[in-house]
Amino acid sequence: MGCGTCATAYYQHVVGEPDVDQRADAVELLALVATLADHAFVRFAADAVNAPTAPERLSRSRLAACSVSRRDRVLDRLADLGGDPVVQIVRFDRVLDDFDARTEPATWAERLLRGYVGCAVSEDFCRLAAWGVDVDSRDLVLDVLDDADHVEASVMALCEACADDPALASRLALWGRRVVGESLQTVSRLLAAYPALGRLAARGMSALREVPDGAEDVQPASKVLNELTAEHTRRMSKLSLTA
Amino acid sequence: MGCGTCATAYYQHVVGEPDVDQRADAVELLALVATLADHAFVRFAADAVNAPTAPERLSRSRLAACSVSRRDRVLDRLADLGGDPVVQIVRFDRVLDDFDARTEPATWAERLLRGYVGCAVSEDFCRLAAWGVDVDSRDLVLDVLDDADHVEASVMALCEACADDPALASRLALWGRRVVGESLQTVSRLLAAYPALGRLAARGMSALREVPDGAEDVQPASKVLNELTAEHTRRMSKLSLTA
Repeated sequence: MGCGTCATAYYQHVVGEPDVDQRADAVELLALVATLADHAFVRFAADAVNAPTAPERLSRSRLAACSVSRRDRVLDRLADLGGDPVVQIVRFDRVLDDFDARTEPATWAERLLRGYVGCAVSEDFCRLAAWGVDVDSRDLVLDVLDDADHVEASVMALCEACADDPALASRLALWGRRVVGESLQTVSRLLAAYPALGRLAARGMSALREVPDGAEDVQPASKVLNELTAEHTRRMSKLSLTA
Repeated sequence: MGCGTCATAYYQHVVGEPDVDQRADAVELLALVATLADHAFVRFAADAVNAPTAPERLSRSRLAACSVSRRDRVLDRLADLGGDPVVQIVRFDRVLDDFDARTEPATWAERLLRGYVGCAVSEDFCRLAAWGVDVDSRDLVLDVLDDADHVEASVMALCEACADDPALASRLALWGRRVVGESLQTVSRLLAAYPALGRLAARGMSALREVPDGAEDVQPASKVLNELTAEHTRRMSKLSLTA
């Protein structure tokens, strides 16, 4: 997602040590990342209960445990910046609950694809916005979101399932479009309801593209959504599914 | 639960290094302990979703994560002794699923009490049987079951809830009796279906009471259940509830 090295130099020039407003913005992003990890915990735990085999059950429960530790690392940073973990961990509940309610999977493959596609969109958004916060918070967010184990596991299981079953592949392609539609709407609602997230994403896009200081405000939400859609298309083709 | 120091000397005299049969028995106990930890993970994860407050939600998810790591430590030891974790982790599913299905809690307090009472009975049983296996496995089982954080948290929450509400206290006393009844039936079914567990529990009771070598076989299952009931009574009085 863009050139990290150039962006670092740019970012440090623009932001430096976070002031009060920047801290508040960072707390907002960290709260979102922690909430995503918390939801991942709940999702992986439900996956473990529904897993069709014992190895998948063991593996999903381990991912659930990792999500708790990732969430807690983010909450620690949030507390360092003056945020209250107990208050912040429930702020984004409603938005993500809506996503869950609208994408209830009917099969194990749909469940895996929802995790792979749905979470990836929100995580891409957080990665982008991470380039708008202080260096320590950004590094933590990028590190926490870089835990790609479950992605690899899901991709392998889905590729295997689709390899000899074109009907399943086309059903899943359809399901993937529905999930990504809901994910993009979720991000859209977040941008509308939480201006700080919009600011951070715009700053992130400027940083990653080396746009000069001050030009960040002209980035509309639609550009963020385009960026996320492009990432999604790349992700679906990794599964040989049509985005 | 008895005198650990005397039992250690006795135990090492009787058992020494585990032979093939003793290894098989130890694998059976470790599989049960791992399954209990796995069920604790599922239960704590469900607790986290149902928790009435954010601090309880955070705390229950952390307990769920700890249960995964406790389970995996036990599965590692099981593998060292030649057991297959993937095969063993599903062996006791049915027995524990029955317990869960028959003690579905209606309120948060009932949920906490089920965890406090129900798991404690199975865990007491495992602690007893642990005195019948090799020293390394025993130490691991006792250590893994010694994670008393959730017990303290549950006791405190339940005591607070009952303090000013005698009606709730008497409803919970009734619920506790139902849960312990189901728990003892679970242990009873385990003893009937898995002779190795019966052997280990009998050996454990002999060890803890310094009964001479060979006398262990005369311990009937009812003595084990009496021992577990006595522990339960002590536990309920800690909550000022009638057992």
